[in-house]
This record gives sequence, structure tokens and C-alpha cells, in this order.
Amino acid sequence: MTQTISINDSQRLQLQPLEVPNRLLLGPGPSNAHPAVLQAMNTSPLGHLDPAFLALMDEIQSLLRYVWQTENPLTIAVSGTGSAAMEATIANAVEPGDVVLIGVAGYFGNRLVDMAGRYGADVRTITKPWGQVFSLAELRTALETHRPAILALVHAETSTGARQPLEGVGELCREFGTLLLIDTVTSLGGVPIFLDAWGVDLAYSCSQKGLGCSPGASPFTMSPRAMEKLQKRSTKVANWYLDMNLLAKYWGSERVYHHTAPINLYYGLREALRLIAEEGLANCWQRHQKNVEYLWQRLEEIGLSLHVEKEYRLPTLTTVRIPAGVDGKAIARQLLIEHNIEVGGGLGELAGQVWRVGLMGYNSRPESVDRLIEALEQVLPKQ
Amino acid sequence: MTQTISINDSQRLQLQPLEVPNRLLLGPGPSNAHPAVLQAMNTSPLGHLDPAFLALMDEIQSLLRYVWQTENPLTIAVSGTGSAAMEATIANAVEPGDVVLIGVAGYFGNRLVDMAGRYGADVRTITKPWGQVFSLAELRTALETHRPAILALVHAETSTGARQPLEGVGELCREFGTLLLIDTVTSLGGVPIFLDAWGVDLAYSCSQKGLGCSPGASPFTMSPRAMEKLQKRSTKVANWYLDMNLLAKYWGSERVYHHTAPINLYYGLREALRLIAEEGLANCWQRHQKNVEYLWQRLEEIGLSLHVEKEYRLPTLTTVRIPAGVDGKAIARQLLIEHNIEVGGGLGELAGQVWRVGLMGYNSRPESVDRLIEALEQVLPKQ
Repeated sequence: MTQTISINDSQRLQLQPLEVPNRLLLGPGPSNAHPAVLQAMNTSPLGHLDPAFLALMDEIQSLLRYVWQTENPLTIAVSGTGSAAMEATIANAVEPGDVVLIGVAGYFGNRLVDMAGRYGADVRTITKPWGQVFSLAELRTALETHRPAILALVHAETSTGARQPLEGVGELCREFGTLLLIDTVTSLGGVPIFLDAWGVDLAYSCSQKGLGCSPGASPFTMSPRAMEKLQKRSTKVANWYLDMNLLAKYWGSERVYHHTAPINLYYGLREALRLIAEEGLANCWQRHQKNVEYLWQRLEEIGLSLHVEKEYRLPTLTTVRIPAGVDGKAIARQLLIEHNIEVGGGLGELAGQVWRVGLMGYNSRPESVDRLIEALEQVLPKQ
Repeated sequence: MTQTISINDSQRLQLQPLEVPNRLLLGPGPSNAHPAVLQAMNTSPLGHLDPAFLALMDEIQSLLRYVWQTENPLTIAVSGTGSAAMEATIANAVEPGDVVLIGVAGYFGNRLVDMAGRYGADVRTITKPWGQVFSLAELRTALETHRPAILALVHAETSTGARQPLEGVGELCREFGTLLLIDTVTSLGGVPIFLDAWGVDLAYSCSQKGLGCSPGASPFTMSPRAMEKLQKRSTKVANWYLDMNLLAKYWGSERVYHHTAPINLYYGLREALRLIAEEGLANCWQRHQKNVEYLWQRLEEIGLSLHVEKEYRLPTLTTVRIPAGVDGKAIARQLLIEHNIEVGGGLGELAGQVWRVGLMGYNSRPESVDRLIEALEQVLPKQ
């Protein structure tokens, strides 16, 4: 070992072991992981080609199919957060020049626009005010106008709390030879989803919301129709890390090394999915619905109003209007610092107008609602 | 909640909580994380914009600068495994048409070739038999011939166990107006690195080797020179998730939301880096060197020989020649199943010819060597 240069200690911080405040995360995500999930992550790692780890990957695949209600063979967890899984759908489905039609009624619709553009798509958009959703008739008109290769919709718009109905959209897409891509980041595990029955071709999600896991390993799935488009590409997928041709060989029977998986996160994801299978998907969805209805009732009781029309409200994320004259940021800061409760602020069109309150996964419990309402009563100005 | 479709339970596995074998990971990575790192990961999550989390991100940035010996302002952890950080260097540095010269003397050199091609680079290569390294004279000739915008070299070739000397390469690159990009996946934390003194412009690594963390949050750094090239781009970075224009606004003072960070992995990374700062970088490097020399001695004592010339051997990863007539795969499998020890097999040119033995991070201890040698003595055919 030759070492003739002297070591620069200017960035050598002397730190104590980690101590962080214990927050109740009721923002748009992350939510608190289930304690059993964190415990599972604290397990000795395996190699990414260890037979015991490959068996665990198979379990994750099955359980992801269960929570998404799909039989898609290629249903995996991407080694990154939800945005990486989002990019994986775009990178694999879009070829340069493809017309991609995107429904934009919030921040994450805009993100899809940005991403699709980077992969050379001919991007078209339809828009709605933030908090509203598209009707089937509006989607039909847009498909007739643009004849896209792909239609991308956000099932659960994290920036607005609105749920885009998807019944009938898959049939419509098949009429036009269009692939249907949907964002289920804030719906998977907490909102009824039937990917196959709805005819969805590509979907992505995250681990730290409805699934009650820690962030960093993110669900991805593609249908045989989408797989066929991938196999017919004339160009390589313009992203090595997220190339499903390569990932399918690692997650499938060939077990060809691609990259080192985030082992301990997969332990956590398996545990989170195992807990949902134990609870049962219908029970899990009903729990989210019941607790959010309790939240809505309590919020209205203390004089707050909700941004999204009741029919389209998400059970996982609620946008609450900031009352006139109230400093929304200051209230959120007080909740965080004085009460250890995180809620989110508004983004884009809704900046300064709403708080975003999540009740997702492990945090979807009546106690979460009670703690929030109690704190809100203390920090909100008396009327 | 409308739910008229019945739930398909065919993929609803009924599983027990996770139980995995307790392996000693002496392959090319992942290595066992330090127990304090796993413990830190089992901490209640914070939101990705929580002031307490932002402070932790700053600590990670400083400590990454320390272990890399750089003052680069943009020194962060990418939310993915080492391959994502590798792709981040390529995606941000390469514009379509750029000449990128890559030194290929192993598997990871070839991976750089694949990635650079996907981002539209005009890729040129120089090659060496796997296990050898490039001389300064060879690099000069190649720079004269190709006049590349970027020279990419693998400091520690994980597939061969060879260490590419980098002294003088940065000066050479400056002569030709070339950016120097290096892979430090298997060197960071275990092999002396002086990024600034060596004039390196872009580097990436992983968390689960020399740093002794769990995989999934991966070091990335770029110099002001590389940053300048990024700012002058005429095209958007062709990768949203890894776009440093956006990530710099989250990790820098602006704190603009980009994506949800893998919170608990950052807890682990902070702890892993904290432990190295406590031990001291020089001590940490010396520990790796001392333990690997003990490994080499013990391997030779039991009649095995090493693939790489001593001067260029990595302290983190050793390639051991499989003796004639021995089934390398069967031996590795016996080590795993009977002794709970993982070692790696050969890749590419070295497939079937070597085992790869890692002594990295927490696993770089004399006890690891003793356990491996004892097991090898039992599973290797008697001479």
C-alpha cells in the first residue's frame, strides 16, 4: 500500500450514534413502517444470488401480484424509490417518437410529462384543475384526437388527494391499440385496485405508503402486451439500471446477475406484504376507508373543509383546505416541532391552499386520527 | 368504496415471519453490515423534508467527502445500489456524440461501455486481459488517439481483484481537456483514495462493501469541472431519477423535493460513515491491508495461488485460482450450505477459473480469514 498523500480531516465529523425524534408521519409519505417491518430489516444480509434470497424474491413477486390483483409474470420490486419505478415504466414502454398521452391534474402528472420527454416521447396532455378527475367520455375524445401508443394516468394523485376512476379505461385503450400506464404510488395497499380486470398494462408504486414498509424498493409490473412492445423495440432501453430485459433475467428463472439488490429492504418489503396477506386485501382496503371516513368527520367537526369532492376522495390521502387567514406553513411546523406529527403542504396549484394528510398502511388507525385532531385543536387559532 | 370485482387469492401466500440463514458474506459483495448499522436502520422514519433528516443528509455529505478525500460540493448518496450511482455518472456527464474512452479489463469496464452507449456516447475502448491494469504510457497513447471528452477507469475491478493505479492520470486528462470518471465500488473505505489529489472528476461507489453498510444508498460525487459540463448541456439529462440538476437542489441549500429518499438506509449509511470517522480513514485502510495480507498468506499455506500480481492486488477483493481438477462451483456451494460462508465465482474471462473472496468493511477481520480457511480445508479435496 503506497500512501504518500496526507489525509485531509476537514470533513471528518465526530458524531454520536443516531438519535432522531419519534414522529407520527401523517403527510403524503413516507408513513411510519410497521414495527415488524423495521425488525425484519434488522436481519443478517444474504447475498443477492443466495438460494434463500432468490426464494424470498419469489415470495415478493407473488405477494405483489396479490396486492395489485394481477397475474403479470413480470411483477417485481425495483431497487429505488417510487420515482425510479415510475421511470422504469416510461423507460421500458416508450420508444423515441411514440405518442404518449398523459392526464395531468396534479404534480405527478407533470412529472410523467417531464420523464416521457426525456425518453424521446411525443408528449400530449389533457388537463384538469388540481383535485378533479377525467371522465370516460373525456378520455375517449382525447384518444380519438391523439391516437397514442400509451395513455398514462395517475390513479391516486398524491398532490391533490383525488382518485381517478379506471373502470372502462382499459377497454377504451384496447379499442385504440393503446397501452394503459398507471401511477398507483398512493393507492397500492390502501385503495381497491384490480389491474387485470381494469386492463392496465404498466403500473408502479412505492413501498412506504399503503404497504407500510420503508422506502427504497418499489413495485413495478407490466402486462404481456407491454412486454411484447418491449421485445419488439428497435433501440435498447435508454436506462441500464431499469432495463426490464435485464431485470427479467434476474427475477425470472435464469437468475442472471444484474445489480446487487437492496437486501434488507427486500426483507422489509416481504414482511409488509406478508402482513397484508395475513390481514386480507379486502380487510386492508376497508380499514383504510373506515379510518379516513373517521378523519373526514373529525376534521369537519373542528370546522375544516376538504378539497376533493367526496366521490373521488382517496382513502389514503386527504387534502384539507387551509382556513382563510391561517398560515398553513406555520401550523404544519408547529405540528411537527411541538407535537411530533408531520403533515404535508400543498404543491403547485394547491401551494398555500391545503394541507395533505395521509393515513396509510400501519398509520391508518383511529389513534392516528385522534392524535392529529387533538394537536390541531391546540395549534389552530380559536374561532 | 365501490368494489364489485371479487378478489383473486391465487397469489396470496401464507408465510411465516422471515427466517434466513446467518451467512458470513466473503464474496464480492454485499458484505455483512456492521451490527450497529442494522440497528440504526431499525429507527423510526422521518419525512424526507424534516429538518432532522436534512441535518442527517448534511452529515452524510461531509463524511462521504472525508472517505473519498474530496471537497466536491456535490457529494451525495444516490437512492439506489452502486449500479445506479454508476449510471448517474454516465447520465450526467455524457451528451449524445461525446467521445467516451473506457478502460476495459473486467466485467465492470464492459458495463460502463453498455451504459455509455445507451446515453448516446461515441464509445471507444482500450482493453487488457482480466486481472491486469493500464500503465500511464498506455493511457497517454489512448488519449492522444481518441481525444475523449471523458476517460472512464475502474479503480477496483470487482470481477478481477485488480487495482488500477491512478497517480498521474488526472494530470494527463487535464492535458487533453478530458474528464476523469472512476469506479470506486470495491475500493471506497478499503483502499486508499485521494479523489482531489488525483484530479478525479466523477466517481461512484456502493454502501455494502468497504463502508460496511447495507446496499441501496450509493455514493456519488462530481467535481466543479464536471458540474460545469453539466450546466452547459444543450439537452436535458436523459434520466429523471438521477438528474444532478434536480438532486443538487434537494441535497443543497434549496431543499426542493425531488423524490422520497430511502430514509432508513440513510440512517444506516450515516452510522457506517460515523464508524469509519471514529476509526480514522488511515486506520481503516491499514486494517483492510493487514487482514488481506493475512488471507493471502493463509491461502498460499493451504496450496492455493492468487490470480493478480501482488503489486496490483486489491485489499478488499482477492481472486483465488481454482486448482486443476477442482469443481469451483461445487466447492462454493459446499461453503455456503455446509459452512454458511459465501464466496463468489468468476465472471466473463475468469468464469470457472477463480473464486472471488472479499474482506470488506466489517468483514475485514482476522476471524473471517480463519473461518474461511478452516472451511476450505474441510471442503477442498486432499492433495
